[in-house]
Amino acid sequence: MKIGMIGGGGVAQALATALLAKGHDVVIGIRTVSDAELSKDRNFSKPLKVWMQETGGKVATMAEAAAHGEIVFNVTAGAASIDALRLAGTDNLKGKVLIDVANPLNFSQGMPPFLEPHLSVTTSLGEEIQKAFPETHVVKALNTVSNAIMVNPGLIPGDHDLFIAGNSAEAKATVKALLTDNFGWTSYFDLGDIVGARASEHLLPLWVRMWMIGGNPLINIKLVNG
Amino acid sequence: MKIGMIGGGGVAQALATALLAKGHDVVIGIRTVSDAELSKDRNFSKPLKVWMQETGGKVATMAEAAAHGEIVFNVTAGAASIDALRLAGTDNLKGKVLIDVANPLNFSQGMPPFLEPHLSVTTSLGEEIQKAFPETHVVKALNTVSNAIMVNPGLIPGDHDLFIAGNSAEAKATVKALLTDNFGWTSYFDLGDIVGARASEHLLPLWVRMWMIGGNPLINIKLVNG
Repeated sequence: MKIGMIGGGGVAQALATALLAKGHDVVIGIRTVSDAELSKDRNFSKPLKVWMQETGGKVATMAEAAAHGEIVFNVTAGAASIDALRLAGTDNLKGKVLIDVANPLNFSQGMPPFLEPHLSVTTSLGEEIQKAFPETHVVKALNTVSNAIMVNPGLIPGDHDLFIAGNSAEAKATVKALLTDNFGWTSYFDLGDIVGARASEHLLPLWVRMWMIGGNPLINIKLVNG
Repeated sequence: MKIGMIGGGGVAQALATALLAKGHDVVIGIRTVSDAELSKDRNFSKPLKVWMQETGGKVATMAEAAAHGEIVFNVTAGAASIDALRLAGTDNLKGKVLIDVANPLNFSQGMPPFLEPHLSVTTSLGEEIQKAFPETHVVKALNTVSNAIMVNPGLIPGDHDLFIAGNSAEAKATVKALLTDNFGWTSYFDLGDIVGARASEHLLPLWVRMWMIGGNPLINIKLVNG
């Protein structure tokens, strides 16, 4: 399948590498394609030039990556996501499933990050993206686990849950099939329409705290009930 | 043990009833003790007059309940907690363990509630209470489960986690002993100092959404790791 990544950091690289290994045709999209951009260090990841050499993966502009993808991932920093997706282009995203992996975290006060108020208090990044791109099928998913777990949930033994939210049942089914077939996810908790993104994005402060306290990013939660 | 409850709603009644059944000397504290106050309906609970008849429990002012308690619970609505605790009295809370069960939820826009920004974005209710009452040992606990689960975690089969946060290791040990001995909690996740309250309070939007979607308040989460 043709897949576009909007963003070139650690999450983009982890997802793209795993999808390339499964035979998909993946293009990573960044704002500006230049030798300087491809050579620079990126947060939690390697220079894209190195990634391209190691994986044979392709890097293009955000608009080219969006146009390429039958399915597109938003893997930009949450506070910058809507601007980045505008660069990717409304027409390039129209009618497509957009898997929104980003979280609206603000690191300006150091650790722990906090949720950007205008993207969290009575809304969410997922909802704001859906409002900004009404003809795109936004599905919030994968934003509550670390890169390693996203593409290999089996690193944590036993069942554990991936939260998913979106307005289109068909788009959510497409995303679940992609994540199950390629990464091995087996247990989903459907939070309903895209308003459910508010719930899963709010998990981030807890996730970061558990990571800081426990020192292990290979964590997730399992919903239990009586 | 002598226990004071600051607040008289559903959470206060559930905790007080369970602690009375275990032989503790519990006083529920409300702002004004009058026949009208004791007779009125309370959110998610019964009139205190009925509760008193059914359990033999006592109701007094917030200051009296705080003075009575060797351990005190904050079970007020989160947005009103600091004002209520001021009525309970700084001196009455001095040197004591205060178990903060409240969440800073704002229901003014209906369901789902949202976290009060001034008590959540770069802080938490637990932290603000600790700042306002520096000589009290604030321990955030029980705020991430429904009343029924607070006092009977066994309603959900298997292990599941209770988040706890506070600056005093001794106070957290006291709270864990109380919750284990009286309610049967067995699994705690210690979020560290009171800043950890930020993490557990942020779980509420997810909790409410899971409850709205699943229709079952007997839910909790279990932390799993690789």
